[in-house]
Amino acid sequence: MQKLTVVKIGGNVIDDETQLQQFLQVFSTIPNPKILIHGGGKLATAMAKQLNIASQLVDGRRITDAATLKVVTMVYAGLINKNIVATLQAQQNNAIGLTGADANLIQAHKRENASIDYGYVGDIDIVNSNFLNDLLTQNIVPVIAPITHNKQGQLLNTNADTIASSIAIALSNQYQVSLFYCFEKKGLLYDVANDESIISNITLSEIEELIDKQIITDGMIPKVKNIEKAINNGVQKIILCNAHDLFLVNEDNAIFGTTFSKA
Amino acid sequence: MQKLTVVKIGGNVIDDETQLQQFLQVFSTIPNPKILIHGGGKLATAMAKQLNIASQLVDGRRITDAATLKVVTMVYAGLINKNIVATLQAQQNNAIGLTGADANLIQAHKRENASIDYGYVGDIDIVNSNFLNDLLTQNIVPVIAPITHNKQGQLLNTNADTIASSIAIALSNQYQVSLFYCFEKKGLLYDVANDESIISNITLSEIEELIDKQIITDGMIPKVKNIEKAINNGVQKIILCNAHDLFLVNEDNAIFGTTFSKA
Repeated sequence: MQKLTVVKIGGNVIDDETQLQQFLQVFSTIPNPKILIHGGGKLATAMAKQLNIASQLVDGRRITDAATLKVVTMVYAGLINKNIVATLQAQQNNAIGLTGADANLIQAHKRENASIDYGYVGDIDIVNSNFLNDLLTQNIVPVIAPITHNKQGQLLNTNADTIASSIAIALSNQYQVSLFYCFEKKGLLYDVANDESIISNITLSEIEELIDKQIITDGMIPKVKNIEKAINNGVQKIILCNAHDLFLVNEDNAIFGTTFSKA
Repeated sequence: MQKLTVVKIGGNVIDDETQLQQFLQVFSTIPNPKILIHGGGKLATAMAKQLNIASQLVDGRRITDAATLKVVTMVYAGLINKNIVATLQAQQNNAIGLTGADANLIQAHKRENASIDYGYVGDIDIVNSNFLNDLLTQNIVPVIAPITHNKQGQLLNTNADTIASSIAIALSNQYQVSLFYCFEKKGLLYDVANDESIISNITLSEIEELIDKQIITDGMIPKVKNIEKAINNGVQKIILCNAHDLFLVNEDNAIFGTTFSKA
């Protein structure tokens, strides 16, 4: 099967123009086919503040009321997405910016939760992998903003990590998929206090062991559970790494970040 | 040749949620292939005001400084574009929202003008009609926001009327194109004071006559010149009409708006 690279970048890279430009320079050198999924970062929060819209967080998740949905649609799907696309176009990557509403790429439903109303937040139902595949075969590079829709006219704010794993899973029938989650650390760490104590390789069975030993704790547990799900659903490998290290992806045998694999 | 319908809607429809929903309901019934181009309207101006960005107009054109470009990118490419796409998706139209940067759809250059610096305003160089045609053959409905790029990383604010005529011209080799310009009047009027004095049909030679007679005056002259150019470059017919009358497009022999044709 042909290889496919799926990269997810988060807020820490998006928020810093210099870091973003450096990242896109590196991303542009990754061979096709490839897909970029971006988060939102603090730009949306700053914009909401400027517009006097109060941001509400519950359990670290933003409550997306109608006013906040407008802001994230503007900032994620407009400002961030189109600037990334224009930058990649300048680097001879034929990028196209999309949300889940475009060509019905990602259909979702409004999250149902008895105790908390998260507002206009989407949980993913299905990824239109045929359309993505059509773009990839034309050497087009999809750049995906974390907004989906419910096919009934409602846009929905959607977690970018989950979009990345859902897309990776959906395309794993047709491609040998490597999914890179870029975040602020250099990988999964044996010792959170030591940034260099990177676990280079980990299998699914070893994950449980590290959770039991409390080496994987707190906020890392849902991230790792998401990764487990992707690995169990056909994604060949997942690399958790720092965006600064992504340039190593083109070097044979380079070791960086934490590689998750089935066994 | 297969027929293609290209529709441009302006700010007056965009600005009013009820009018927009009515328009999209009608647009969704037009058979494929079809393309929608939307302007921006007062939403961007209102947003700029909320963000304390002063809007500058010279000769009725907005000066697009860096701060204004951010606002129009958010509002046109994000908020307006994605809400239109989600609404059309609910109406079983497989819409995709695009700017000129996406898939290098519309390449432009920053307007050069010795006397006035319009800022980040684009004049169109080329439309990627192959990509549009690929989408149309898949029954996908492109929804295009008035933002282009220069292929060197710079987004550019671009006149939606010109985008509509450039797209219509670019596709006129492959399709028999009808271009609908929806605006606030019911068509070209013999008497501006009488909204019902619609000129139903007009040829290129008759346009000059009406300019000489000062029946076509002021702001209508550049609009008509734009139409002349499109007709002279392969567009089969152009209809200038009110968005409320667009439902008549599916009725045989219905007469509405002003139809411009070569002869």
